[in-house]
Amino acid sequence: MTIKVGVLGAKGKMGSQTCQAVEAAADCELVAALDQGDELQQLVDAGAQVVVDFTRPEVVMDNLEFCIGHGISAVVGTTGFDEQRLDTLRGRLASNPDVGVLIAANFSIGAVLMMRFAAQAARFYESVEIIELHHPDKVDAPSGTARRTAELVAEARRIAGSPPVPDATTQELPGARGAEVEGIRVHGVRLRGLIAHQEVLFGDTGETLTIRHDSLHRESFMAGVLLGVRRIGGTQGLTVGLEHFLDLDAAR
Amino acid sequence: MTIKVGVLGAKGKMGSQTCQAVEAAADCELVAALDQGDELQQLVDAGAQVVVDFTRPEVVMDNLEFCIGHGISAVVGTTGFDEQRLDTLRGRLASNPDVGVLIAANFSIGAVLMMRFAAQAARFYESVEIIELHHPDKVDAPSGTARRTAELVAEARRIAGSPPVPDATTQELPGARGAEVEGIRVHGVRLRGLIAHQEVLFGDTGETLTIRHDSLHRESFMAGVLLGVRRIGGTQGLTVGLEHFLDLDAAR
Amino acid sequence: MTIKVGVLGAKGKMGSQTCQAVEAAADCELVAALDQGDELQQLVDAGAQVVVDFTRPEVVMDNLEFCIGHGISAVVGTTGFDEQRLDTLRGRLASNPDVGVLIAANFSIGAVLMMRFAAQAARFYESVEIIELHHPDKVDAPSGTARRTAELVAEARRIAGSPPVPDATTQELPGARGAEVEGIRVHGVRLRGLIAHQEVLFGDTGETLTIRHDSLHRESFMAGVLLGVRRIGGTQGLTVGLEHFLDLDAAR
Amino acid sequence: MTIKVGVLGAKGKMGSQTCQAVEAAADCELVAALDQGDELQQLVDAGAQVVVDFTRPEVVMDNLEFCIGHGISAVVGTTGFDEQRLDTLRGRLASNPDVGVLIAANFSIGAVLMMRFAAQAARFYESVEIIELHHPDKVDAPSGTARRTAELVAEARRIAGSPPVPDATTQELPGARGAEVEGIRVHGVRLRGLIAHQEVLFGDTGETLTIRHDSLHRESFMAGVLLGVRRIGGTQGLTVGLEHFLDLDAAR
Repeated sequence: MTIKVGVLGAKGKMGSQTCQAVEAAADCELVAALDQGDELQQLVDAGAQVVVDFTRPEVVMDNLEFCIGHGISAVVGTTGFDEQRLDTLRGRLASNPDVGVLIAANFSIGAVLMMRFAAQAARFYESVEIIELHHPDKVDAPSGTARRTAELVAEARRIAGSPPVPDATTQELPGARGAEVEGIRVHGVRLRGLIAHQEVLFGDTGETLTIRHDSLHRESFMAGVLLGVRRIGGTQGLTVGLEHFLDLDAAR
Repeated sequence: MTIKVGVLGAKGKMGSQTCQAVEAAADCELVAALDQGDELQQLVDAGAQVVVDFTRPEVVMDNLEFCIGHGISAVVGTTGFDEQRLDTLRGRLASNPDVGVLIAANFSIGAVLMMRFAAQAARFYESVEIIELHHPDKVDAPSGTARRTAELVAEARRIAGSPPVPDATTQELPGARGAEVEGIRVHGVRLRGLIAHQEVLFGDTGETLTIRHDSLHRESFMAGVLLGVRRIGGTQGLTVGLEHFLDLDAAR
Repeated sequence: MTIKVGVLGAKGKMGSQTCQAVEAAADCELVAALDQGDELQQLVDAGAQVVVDFTRPEVVMDNLEFCIGHGISAVVGTTGFDEQRLDTLRGRLASNPDVGVLIAANFSIGAVLMMRFAAQAARFYESVEIIELHHPDKVDAPSGTARRTAELVAEARRIAGSPPVPDATTQELPGARGAEVEGIRVHGVRLRGLIAHQEVLFGDTGETLTIRHDSLHRESFMAGVLLGVRRIGGTQGLTVGLEHFLDLDAAR
Repeated sequence: MTIKVGVLGAKGKMGSQTCQAVEAAADCELVAALDQGDELQQLVDAGAQVVVDFTRPEVVMDNLEFCIGHGISAVVGTTGFDEQRLDTLRGRLASNPDVGVLIAANFSIGAVLMMRFAAQAARFYESVEIIELHHPDKVDAPSGTARRTAELVAEARRIAGSPPVPDATTQELPGARGAEVEGIRVHGVRLRGLIAHQEVLFGDTGETLTIRHDSLHRESFMAGVLLGVRRIGGTQGLTVGLEHFLDLDAAR
């Protein structure tokens, strides 16, 4: 039996990619592809069971209210969710126990694995630094993924009671040692020809461990979107982060 | 309170390194450093609580029988353990419920993490290959760690029902595509200046994930040995593999 | 003053990319874009000064005879040139001293630099190996670039009188140590998500040097094609290999 | 015939390593190993043909005056040479035409090759950045080699008329984009377990080129020192930089 999927923001970059991915998946059927100006009612009429939302912060809460109210589960890549918004969603989901909503900041399974492994390795190493490498048209440095990775690594070290990362630098050309995110050094490289890449380097006496993720195409996010679509139907309530659908603790 | 540690094989490379590491650790005390010809009774006289054994397959079973019989736990890096030997140990430990024994093929925490992460990532990627790189005086190719990694990855793919790794090669100069270990391609590089290194490469549409471990010094195994020493006292029965002491499932 | 450029094989992958690149270049003008069935006379009528040929081995010699005879220089990426063909071209160019022809197997400036640097570094290192990494739809292993690099490195070592690369391997799972090209080990990795990549690793006591080239898009060949177009007008006779237009010896 | 070598600063780290390397080399003979307090006259008495100086800025000029005056060539790794000192040396060498002096800031052949290749590649790429990675006990960031590489790359781009490296960053956490050395971004990573490593990354549309050097042991400098010893006898006057003895332009 196929999953009937509706896409909101179907004309955007991620939305149109999602439409293609849903159509190409044997176990999914694209029943509605809506964008600005279209009626949400079409989702109901088409019998959508799961909605994928790549729209904008201004409209996503209304979209989700509609979906939850009509018993449609949702996979959401739209940004702008703070604790207040998440609480609002939890409240609405409480009264609709059959519906599930996944909010994910990153649909790259590789990036999620990298962050997870980095958090797990953090407490075993004296040193850790992060290098992210992107195309030179990117406006922010470091990347959101690098900041998030640094936060996760810092949290794991805090819980483990790790001392500060060692650094004897006394003479520094400004910026040479990178930016500091919760005590973790993060370096942003910008290079024509690159897309989106990140390395997390761990080091201790006599050994280093490196976890590297290379994103070469937006298409790589679709495996994560489809994973969300397949899992959200059987999941009640709110899930924040794709990592909860990777079943990593059960992996061995 | 410190842990009283005895070392067997104390004059060997790993044994002498272990003696240094135990003496340098604030929470451990080296109470006996024995080698060929020394009496095991010295362990009892010195009050050893934990023994680290880096000896040889011919003597390790006698050493462990003595330790278990005298209520001394053991951390064992000596090779040569097959299922029969492990069963013998389990039998002896059953009648000495306060004693724990750790048998570990690899005390490098980084290598253990690499293998664990590789096994976890395996089912999310269409492709995977392994490159191990060592100094040119190594006699076997691929390395034992590379073979073991390939087996773990292959097992994870089997459980997940992954199809074979794709490979359209029809014209191959013999050896160009590496060796095959349970369907996984493994490449062994030998280069002066290198010590012991390994990369596990995963790839899917539009993205790759790489996990790399670099071992630069035997000293790097000591963190794993000390972890074993600290944990084995509170662990009953037989433990095979350092990964069981890394508490990875509890990490997040 | 712009260079008037004609393209042969204009509907093929490389040809159409070349048409776009010529049109985008401020100092070039695309005056003819021909493919199978079109009359070569159009090149003359349009006043083409340089022709770029990405056709097929069966027709390229006729194309070049026409161009040389009409005083049009040529940049050729079509394959299939052996010594006999090159001699034929030299003969024809001898009687047309104003015309230049560049035959290049590889228009990637990065790949040409990698091969050049590898050849230069070869005699300083005891060890060298090559790893090439490509998408899993590639039918040959190792890649042509990897073979060519191995040949250049082997030649440089021969000239310098270097001894064979050290390798103590006595127990090998078949293929683990890669393919051998003139005494140099070459490893071919195939991974979904990759395009075309190569690493040349040099090693000696206490240090290693690595030269890596990553090709992510066919577009990357256009800088080399345009360099050929700009230089061939002022170059007489036959030039084999883009490296002759990089002026590397004059670089410092 | 062997080269008779004297070492000054023979008890220091580099000096003692040099003594070992000279003794191990079949074509060299260690005839004098002097340190603080020893008489330079011993060099003459022992018949030294080449002196290797790893002493200190305060004494090196006196050492060289003595050597030049006695017809002994010198290979110098001591730091602190400015233009004035070099001019002084040139003056003294002018009146002793049979003597040669090599002043080298870096005896790592790999580092010299990396800098050379980086300078040659510089003008072909829109983007370039440098990442240096060292142990966390290093006090300065970026490293001297990284600064020097950036200067060489910047100079090559200036000569070629390259535009500034592209960078659209408008929101930067301080330091995220590294330090700037003559317009080139340089990032310094500090990680326990590392020794001394550097990557130069070049990028253009659709491709990247990476040159990486890993120094794992001081022993790796000895090939450069011995190269200097073998070549300085046949070289008149002052040579600044080991690269002049690598014959790279003649390499192909």
